[in-house]
Amino acid sequence: MTTFQGTIGIIGAGALGALYGARIARNGHEVKFLLRSDYDTVVRDGLQIKSPQGDFTLRPPVYKSATEMGPCDLVIIGLKTTNNHALGELLRPVVGPETVILTLQNGLGNEELIVEALVDEHPDINKRLLGCVAFLCSNRVAPGVIHHVDYGHVRLAEFSGPVISRTEAICELFKEAEFGAKVHDSLMQIRWEKLVWNVPFNGLSVGAVLASSKDVVTNDPLRAVARGLMDEVIAGATADGVTIEPSFADLMMEYTDKMVPYKSSMQLDFEARSPIEVESILGEPYRRARGAGIPTPRLEMLYGIVKRADGKNREDPDF
Amino acid sequence: MTTFQGTIGIIGAGALGALYGARIARNGHEVKFLLRSDYDTVVRDGLQIKSPQGDFTLRPPVYKSATEMGPCDLVIIGLKTTNNHALGELLRPVVGPETVILTLQNGLGNEELIVEALVDEHPDINKRLLGCVAFLCSNRVAPGVIHHVDYGHVRLAEFSGPVISRTEAICELFKEAEFGAKVHDSLMQIRWEKLVWNVPFNGLSVGAVLASSKDVVTNDPLRAVARGLMDEVIAGATADGVTIEPSFADLMMEYTDKMVPYKSSMQLDFEARSPIEVESILGEPYRRARGAGIPTPRLEMLYGIVKRADGKNREDPDF
Repeated sequence: MTTFQGTIGIIGAGALGALYGARIARNGHEVKFLLRSDYDTVVRDGLQIKSPQGDFTLRPPVYKSATEMGPCDLVIIGLKTTNNHALGELLRPVVGPETVILTLQNGLGNEELIVEALVDEHPDINKRLLGCVAFLCSNRVAPGVIHHVDYGHVRLAEFSGPVISRTEAICELFKEAEFGAKVHDSLMQIRWEKLVWNVPFNGLSVGAVLASSKDVVTNDPLRAVARGLMDEVIAGATADGVTIEPSFADLMMEYTDKMVPYKSSMQLDFEARSPIEVESILGEPYRRARGAGIPTPRLEMLYGIVKRADGKNREDPDF
Repeated sequence: MTTFQGTIGIIGAGALGALYGARIARNGHEVKFLLRSDYDTVVRDGLQIKSPQGDFTLRPPVYKSATEMGPCDLVIIGLKTTNNHALGELLRPVVGPETVILTLQNGLGNEELIVEALVDEHPDINKRLLGCVAFLCSNRVAPGVIHHVDYGHVRLAEFSGPVISRTEAICELFKEAEFGAKVHDSLMQIRWEKLVWNVPFNGLSVGAVLASSKDVVTNDPLRAVARGLMDEVIAGATADGVTIEPSFADLMMEYTDKMVPYKSSMQLDFEARSPIEVESILGEPYRRARGAGIPTPRLEMLYGIVKRADGKNREDPDF
């Protein structure tokens, strides 16, 4: 299999985007990074990756603005979905007539926003857009310093249409960089499957509940809540045209029982009083299920209380 | 109508028990108070009532232990349900062969615990037990100082059997003390009706949500959650043999729209890091519905997260 060739731009070089970008760059690909607050540190000290698969420092081309970076052959989006309002402004300068976009973002609705932001200028953008579900535990521990804790495999899929060789070539970038990587037929399938876990275990990890995955699975009422949420996500997926067997929820519970406890990215953001990805992970699945007439009382409630907790958490330093 | 005559013992002289007891005592009834932390202050300064209906100071007979107080003709229980484990120990010394018990406690399951604690010694105790639902806004603002903010009417009902004249006579005690008071046919009816409001607006007032009733009714997702919780409580009531029309929930929402915002007792307790009445207000209704095979996903979730929030709130000073 041929590996994708061309310039790669990383938009949103946080714990995910910077790690994948740096590991791909280490294999000789030209990877450009758009940086804001980390710019000066990376110019001075490089981008430092700490990983069980090897530490290294990269001195990549870095840019303060998307216009400076200019069009790339592949754009990888690691932007937090709470910054999705900036998608248009960040993407227009880096997307040319042939550019392929791959978004690593969490949850549902991100691809649609990308299409909306670019479709006037690029009517075929839906054919040049890939979604990617990342299974990665990685933290930005300081400006320009990324700590890759564990995992890292990715699932890629076309936003629309059948899989084409270009996507397999992009998948090779990840494999070469020593990440597990696979192209899937249905983007909605891989996105909803991830949500079966993310909805309960991210949603319950913030606010009053502040329960780690271990806290949830070892507390009887919360375990029942998590299982009920999983069933609702599966029902929402079904209504959205995606088949997930109910046994998948059992598998996810068993998997979580065995998991080493770690803090979800939503919990880390919440603790840092940063915006949390409440819309893409909870709001959009809830709206899709409701739009299809599927009752999701637990998801509705979790969305309502987490959205409020997020608001209070950021407005009120004493909350 | 004759008013109840005899000695009255107040067990649990907090914001509710002390206010009702003091107002009844002011009419010349012999009312004894069991006190713990407020004992010395009340001995020195009396029991001070601040109320829109008139301030006064009472110097009642006070006791440090139930044994010292001894049997009364009427025992009024204002104990927080979080102290229900102490019911037996507190009641046995004050309940004689003719004593009538009236509990002002919140939620479900309290009468059953009282029967359980006393039935061996008093096989007829279920016939001498009244439940009372209090609609009262009252706070203990300092040791021995009760601030009656608003409301105060009570609904009384037999725990078992038809209404008898003794209960009407006890109702007169409250009327004489200038509280609205009425005897109802069904205790479960008045308890479940109160829960239609208490479940959402107490439950959502603590933990991450920390939403006042005004916050809930003016926030679309939380308003939907509250309405959904009300429907679940009504379904639970139906399964428990109590008919509440769905329109009752609409009425409660309209009533809440017009309400002056105030902090629920659950919220005040939560803020004071005291135990909250999670079992009688959320746990017991949830268990009754589940026992009857009625799905209450929102109530299950609220119970799970509030129970955890309560635990964390008291264990962890930084939570």
